[in-house]
Amino acid sequence: MPSEAGGRGPTSRPPSADPTVADFTEAELIARISAPLPPPAPWLLVGIGDDAAVVLPERNRLAVLTVDALVEGVHFDRAFTPPAAIGHRALAVNLSDLAAMGASPRLALVSLVLPPALPIGDFDSMMSGLAALARRYGVQIAGGNLSRSPGPLMIDITAVGGVKPRRALTRAGAQAGDELYVTGTIGAAAAGLQMLRAGAGEWSGGSAPQARQPTWARCVQRYLLPEPRVRIGSLIGRNRAASACIDLSDGLGDAVHQMAAASGIGAVVDEGSLPLDPGAREWFESHGGDAVAAAIQGGDDYELLVAVRPRARRRLAALAGRDTPLTRVGLCTEERDVLLRRPDGRTVPLGHGYSHFT
Amino acid sequence: MPSEAGGRGPTSRPPSADPTVADFTEAELIARISAPLPPPAPWLLVGIGDDAAVVLPERNRLAVLTVDALVEGVHFDRAFTPPAAIGHRALAVNLSDLAAMGASPRLALVSLVLPPALPIGDFDSMMSGLAALARRYGVQIAGGNLSRSPGPLMIDITAVGGVKPRRALTRAGAQAGDELYVTGTIGAAAAGLQMLRAGAGEWSGGSAPQARQPTWARCVQRYLLPEPRVRIGSLIGRNRAASACIDLSDGLGDAVHQMAAASGIGAVVDEGSLPLDPGAREWFESHGGDAVAAAIQGGDDYELLVAVRPRARRRLAALAGRDTPLTRVGLCTEERDVLLRRPDGRTVPLGHGYSHFT
Repeated sequence: MPSEAGGRGPTSRPPSADPTVADFTEAELIARISAPLPPPAPWLLVGIGDDAAVVLPERNRLAVLTVDALVEGVHFDRAFTPPAAIGHRALAVNLSDLAAMGASPRLALVSLVLPPALPIGDFDSMMSGLAALARRYGVQIAGGNLSRSPGPLMIDITAVGGVKPRRALTRAGAQAGDELYVTGTIGAAAAGLQMLRAGAGEWSGGSAPQARQPTWARCVQRYLLPEPRVRIGSLIGRNRAASACIDLSDGLGDAVHQMAAASGIGAVVDEGSLPLDPGAREWFESHGGDAVAAAIQGGDDYELLVAVRPRARRRLAALAGRDTPLTRVGLCTEERDVLLRRPDGRTVPLGHGYSHFT
Repeated sequence: MPSEAGGRGPTSRPPSADPTVADFTEAELIARISAPLPPPAPWLLVGIGDDAAVVLPERNRLAVLTVDALVEGVHFDRAFTPPAAIGHRALAVNLSDLAAMGASPRLALVSLVLPPALPIGDFDSMMSGLAALARRYGVQIAGGNLSRSPGPLMIDITAVGGVKPRRALTRAGAQAGDELYVTGTIGAAAAGLQMLRAGAGEWSGGSAPQARQPTWARCVQRYLLPEPRVRIGSLIGRNRAASACIDLSDGLGDAVHQMAAASGIGAVVDEGSLPLDPGAREWFESHGGDAVAAAIQGGDDYELLVAVRPRARRRLAALAGRDTPLTRVGLCTEERDVLLRRPDGRTVPLGHGYSHFT
């Protein structure tokens, strides 16, 4: 929707050596987004290019919907985040939200707010990064929106998935006595971000990210190209092992606090049991940081925190694999405090994670 | 999702006389959004506050999904757009997209990207404006996202509606010989925007917008508080009168061009038949402007352009009412040119509407 009347169609400027998105019409940009996408699924009755997408609902499934924005200068820095990583991360954070609900992703709507000076090559790379992740999980790009930005680049994605009735996971079902598990390892993304800022790691967008130490490269990869827990999320939903689930997008500390608040319980997390990424531990310790605090408060780990009744422990364990370890990190308690048990046995308040405003 | 680890919880600043969104936690802001909303519908199984919303699909309906962003400095100017109008418009543009597909709205996800200095009163007003429009059409706010903005305020809304199978309207069904109709009047929003910029109209957010001339107040209202054509859109879908439909968000000129391109046809629009808003005509003519050009190229008229087979004309006419006049404005043609027939009978290329980048 416009703020002013104006001319339209391709600009009359001569083609520039370094063309930007402003050198292209909306129709041309939409065509560049659509061209590399797989053909629409039969259930996508109207896709990109109309006023809205039209979709045949999944039979016997609930629809699960989430939206998450990536804002330049807040969620990423273009100085060290290649465009392909921006596109990848923008979709990954949404797929992670669906996974935390036990849902399988189905489609995404992509709303782009772009500075006119964005090089068209960066635009293409951003959309390639997004499309590659979408393809990996069979996510259809069903539509979106293009707007000009007077400032930061923004990419806001709505993802829609499906889950069988009574199989959706929420934050609210944990009870005192439930055990807390975390998928994968934590702290790597926070370390990777520090490495990128410090110039100790980089990625040019081609092959895998590089870092000064081989064990650090994985941290940079985890920050730039997080892998959402799509498969185990939907498996956990299906086999009814979990009483509650949430992703670690804003850090483990935040996730435990959010789950405890939504469920009306407290929790004790065992510091000694936390699955710290080895490269992250090495990075934080060699840079004078507190690896445990960084792993608890650092965000961008798109792992899942799962609460499990003790009797369902085996059902959950059956889902863990070499790719997706599951580590018991704590226990839900009747008292509403959210605590960290230090190695010496003392308990202290568990730190919160990232806050978006303060 | 964070860009850095950090503290959380309410800030330790002393309460300010003019609090901003930065003085509140995310949980507090979410509570302020939720409090005035109607209770969740039975089909909204998980609403605001979890990782995603969970929704029971409508029986025997297709899902229709759209996303549209409102960006400060591009789509609105906070100098003359009160917060309630920003919230209203952000939802209205999405409901208009659903109406253009023949769909009835059901729910919305609201992604807010907010400058930390935004006064909390403006935040509340913005959400009230949005909630009031949502309530009017029974739209549930099912979820959303909060991010900080390093620059402009942005509000990106995903709206989801439903339409019966084979009743969805697209841009692509028009054929040569179909007649083109427009709902309501055009040009008012473009005039209203000019009035606001010129200081000839204003709205403080309380009662109705004011303008120097009584006939102009309606233009200011049309710009600030556009009324999406929700009811007639879904009626047009249901009674199968239309062969194609699109909304006028980027102007009538753009809409005719888009429909013609999608349908593989051309069109001739009759200048003399255009339903120009009287206040807009008066404004443009008294300010040395070309009222017709402004009405064709000016956007923000959330009216619908409808293509109708001649034999279905009566079915369409049956839907028009005093509130929603329908005016025949042109004809679809086999030749692919998109033309305007001037009062003297000559035809000229029909101007395009607003472009988001050029």
